[in-house]
Amino acid sequence: MTGPPPAVAAARVAVRADLADLPPGALVLVACSGGPDSLALAATTAFVSARAGLRAGAVVVDHGLQAGSADVARDAARACRDLGLDPVRVVAVEVGGGGGPEAAARSARYTALEAAATELGAAAVLLGHTLDDQAETVLLALARGSGARSLAGMPARRGSLRRPLLGLRREQTLAVCAALGLAPWHDPTNGGPCAPVAPAAASAQTAAAGPAQRRREVRHRVLPLLEDVLGPGVALALARTGDQLREDAEALEALAATLLAAAEAAAAETTAAGPAGADPAGAGLDVDLLAAAPAAVRRRALRLAAIGAGCPPGALHRAHVLAMDALVTAWHGQAGVDLPGRIALARACGRLTFHNPQY
Amino acid sequence: MTGPPPAVAAARVAVRADLADLPPGALVLVACSGGPDSLALAATTAFVSARAGLRAGAVVVDHGLQAGSADVARDAARACRDLGLDPVRVVAVEVGGGGGPEAAARSARYTALEAAATELGAAAVLLGHTLDDQAETVLLALARGSGARSLAGMPARRGSLRRPLLGLRREQTLAVCAALGLAPWHDPTNGGPCAPVAPAAASAQTAAAGPAQRRREVRHRVLPLLEDVLGPGVALALARTGDQLREDAEALEALAATLLAAAEAAAAETTAAGPAGADPAGAGLDVDLLAAAPAAVRRRALRLAAIGAGCPPGALHRAHVLAMDALVTAWHGQAGVDLPGRIALARACGRLTFHNPQY
Repeated sequence: MTGPPPAVAAARVAVRADLADLPPGALVLVACSGGPDSLALAATTAFVSARAGLRAGAVVVDHGLQAGSADVARDAARACRDLGLDPVRVVAVEVGGGGGPEAAARSARYTALEAAATELGAAAVLLGHTLDDQAETVLLALARGSGARSLAGMPARRGSLRRPLLGLRREQTLAVCAALGLAPWHDPTNGGPCAPVAPAAASAQTAAAGPAQRRREVRHRVLPLLEDVLGPGVALALARTGDQLREDAEALEALAATLLAAAEAAAAETTAAGPAGADPAGAGLDVDLLAAAPAAVRRRALRLAAIGAGCPPGALHRAHVLAMDALVTAWHGQAGVDLPGRIALARACGRLTFHNPQY
Repeated sequence: MTGPPPAVAAARVAVRADLADLPPGALVLVACSGGPDSLALAATTAFVSARAGLRAGAVVVDHGLQAGSADVARDAARACRDLGLDPVRVVAVEVGGGGGPEAAARSARYTALEAAATELGAAAVLLGHTLDDQAETVLLALARGSGARSLAGMPARRGSLRRPLLGLRREQTLAVCAALGLAPWHDPTNGGPCAPVAPAAASAQTAAAGPAQRRREVRHRVLPLLEDVLGPGVALALARTGDQLREDAEALEALAATLLAAAEAAAAETTAAGPAGADPAGAGLDVDLLAAAPAAVRRRALRLAAIGAGCPPGALHRAHVLAMDALVTAWHGQAGVDLPGRIALARACGRLTFHNPQY
């Protein structure tokens, strides 16, 4: 007697481990596009949940962004039903325009998945992202230069969302589909294995293209070249880097929140003890406490404080944070710092205070 | 009256800012290979130091790894003297074999530079690394998947070593040489702009090649492709990422050292208060204190503790650290963890203790 093919076994081990904490009878939903990753996940979840005493269903999101998307969604739903998943829902969403098309589609998709989970009483929603998706995400974040949090990539769990296949390669999900006789849909705009982007398609225009195009280029040109130059372990290394940086970001963000609260409390105390009429609310931040903290914690605390004062997070760059930081660590009587959102930060009497010079 | 060409002005601004903290009359040494980066640095340092009341000399390291290296070193020394640098020393070093040829050459070079600085009474040794070198270093580290510290790249300062050109692109150092009529040496094994590696040279053998070859491939194939796909700002983003991750690593390492000391002290205290004959020294680590810390801090503390117990740092991988961590956070009575260097870690009575099962 032989066991299942290696890719099928690997997928089952990963999904079984990820669902081990759920109580008997709990419902899990697979977010299925019909593509190889999520179809392999749907098949694996159907197999594992039946043996683990769980119920398994699926949600197919129709973004309505391509002609024929309703047909693709219907086919994916049928494939899920054929695998024994129940209930299977198709949810049509309207993609807004906020933050660019890829971000808008992602936001609409997650909102729809969470709504379906709530409506159906699901304990978890499973997403089919693989180690290759994670490596692409880390590389794309790296190119933005925006620190540990964005380099951390996608978490294995957030809220009810889970990504059991983050340790598997994309080629393993393809192998699962092949071994089980499943016919996944290959998104033509996604440059799947049926439609690789030839190196000859390289163009100086690429950098000006949108995020979806950039991800395709990373998938079909950058990662293969990195694997050629640096070795086949590079995708795993990128994903492992993401895991470690996520831990780092979580620890430092928690410390920064604690520091910020302490710096606010210390400034309020000084103000309350000061001349009558001084307002302890909005007393700002105590400079000495900030200065004693490590730079990584202090700069995160200053960033948090600026966002709390009304700066739009997306417009707050490293240069702004360093200018705020200089008021703490390189103080020579300089003028305040102008921040996005018409906020200014100034130092006086051992305290930093935000104000809005327009009013 | 026109000012100097932009690249020359940018280099002067960078070097002037980097030397601003030195007292009048101090000696700075430029580490010069004769290549474009360090020759541009030598010329800029000669100009800036004369106007800043500093003395500037040079050290040329002859690694003896290529035929004719003594001639190259002599030419570089002559170029430095022609620029007005004084003293100029050529130091021949013997490259050992530890850690591979690139690491051995680097180690021999830094030892020679520090010895020359001590002997000549120099306040600082300037290295010509550019933003491109930094981006390459970050990418190479990323592919190893070894966390924030190795991703941090090269620091702008460490000990007496300084890297004033980390904010400049390599093409700017070439422009400085061209503007000043300097003829830099282009290392033929380095694949300089005179000898670019053609994409046609791509080969499946690349990944098996040594670190020097990997760096050349990153320089001539990976970074250009990343700039094409992700935009021309990618080198700057990589370098900025390195800066932020260096801050993170410093903060987390300091917190881990503090946590480790506290966990050792708490375990020693419990042991001292316990039955007579128990040995408070080597009492191990208090599990409760470790468990209360954030994962990023606790895992670094466990890594530090393992190294302190005798594990060779280079052999201690993420998987070992996670296995140690599971003794703290996922304790179900499992056996101890085997670590490199024939060290084992076990948990008993609320404490982790290292021991060497061979003795």
